[in-house]
Amino acid sequence: MADEVVLHSYFRSSASWRVRIALAYKGIQYETKPVHLVKAEQKGAEYKEHNPMCQVPTLHIDGLRLTQSLPIIEYLDETRQGYKLLPEDPAQRFQVRRLAEIINSGIQPVQNLSVLQRLAEVTGDADTKAAWGREWITRGFDALEFEMSSTAGVYSVGDSVSMADLALVPQVYNANRFKVDMAKYPTISRVNEACIKLPEFKAADPTAQPDCPDELK
Amino acid sequence: MADEVVLHSYFRSSASWRVRIALAYKGIQYETKPVHLVKAEQKGAEYKEHNPMCQVPTLHIDGLRLTQSLPIIEYLDETRQGYKLLPEDPAQRFQVRRLAEIINSGIQPVQNLSVLQRLAEVTGDADTKAAWGREWITRGFDALEFEMSSTAGVYSVGDSVSMADLALVPQVYNANRFKVDMAKYPTISRVNEACIKLPEFKAADPTAQPDCPDELK
Repeated sequence: MADEVVLHSYFRSSASWRVRIALAYKGIQYETKPVHLVKAEQKGAEYKEHNPMCQVPTLHIDGLRLTQSLPIIEYLDETRQGYKLLPEDPAQRFQVRRLAEIINSGIQPVQNLSVLQRLAEVTGDADTKAAWGREWITRGFDALEFEMSSTAGVYSVGDSVSMADLALVPQVYNANRFKVDMAKYPTISRVNEACIKLPEFKAADPTAQPDCPDELK
Repeated sequence: MADEVVLHSYFRSSASWRVRIALAYKGIQYETKPVHLVKAEQKGAEYKEHNPMCQVPTLHIDGLRLTQSLPIIEYLDETRQGYKLLPEDPAQRFQVRRLAEIINSGIQPVQNLSVLQRLAEVTGDADTKAAWGREWITRGFDALEFEMSSTAGVYSVGDSVSMADLALVPQVYNANRFKVDMAKYPTISRVNEACIKLPEFKAADPTAQPDCPDELK
């Protein structure tokens, strides 16, 4: 690639993390530009030009400004050779996309930082955030565990890493932050353990990012 | 198709509506099995076997049990001839998927019925629901209008109906229910008006469904 690839990212944003894993699998070198979500940098006028939803990630590549993690991953998979993050067979592709969407639209949006912050304002009680997050992740993981019990091999769908795994690992990290009882989810837990050993997942881990605070490394 | 196609659907569920439009574009005949969300039928043990997320739609087709609207639409587009709901060019496909995801993961999950019901319980104030829904749709439509101002032709991306339009029309319907100020969104409004004139969108409209109450027709 002649053009420089730039990823606007936050070290523990789920959606940024998914895209970082995809970039690692595709062997794409990129510059990370950190956007500090807790300091609300994503709402600043400068960043909003990259991402009008005020979310991370934004990926600049091929002269395009890409946002929304799953469409970014599909784009990378369609335009790059090498490791394929979606299988060839339509029914298998469906299973990958379904698992990814249970997380991407069914769980993460309801427990993300901006919703939790707004919830605390509406209720006037910051303590509602933890219970709310735990509740929605639990609902979603109940369904995800059910679906994965018939699709999973070593990884979420069969024995090859797919886009479903890219969604899974950051969501398990969030589940642990929200103290979800992971003992209820043996398939999810087993697949997560298998993924996090892989070099592409290690490279994308929050602790490996330039904006990760030293005390969390 | 030798096997009968069955869609578990609720007449004004956004996700069901998207899939109904896709089925109309693909010319697939199907039986509708209504699931009454306000009566909480989606949480019953019988329906949960179809959809462990307790959501509509579920589509039974090709011997598969399909859930999650965008993966269902991608599956239909990959396995059926005829009208293509995603364009061929990867950059155009990306644009379609991005617009669909701004709605599918960025707006709809935060204002859907189950989240609003839980919000009312947490706040102890049912009046919070309308303002919450309006606020999140407005945030999302601000971004969607910005993106569509550079992608839209007659429809959301160029001059052909795509998966982005299937997501757009039900979300505009919700925006109107939540009394969002649509005058701020000329591109969204124009594309919506163009779509709802089309026979495939008319066939999928809530008022054309067997579970639509007579007083709403």
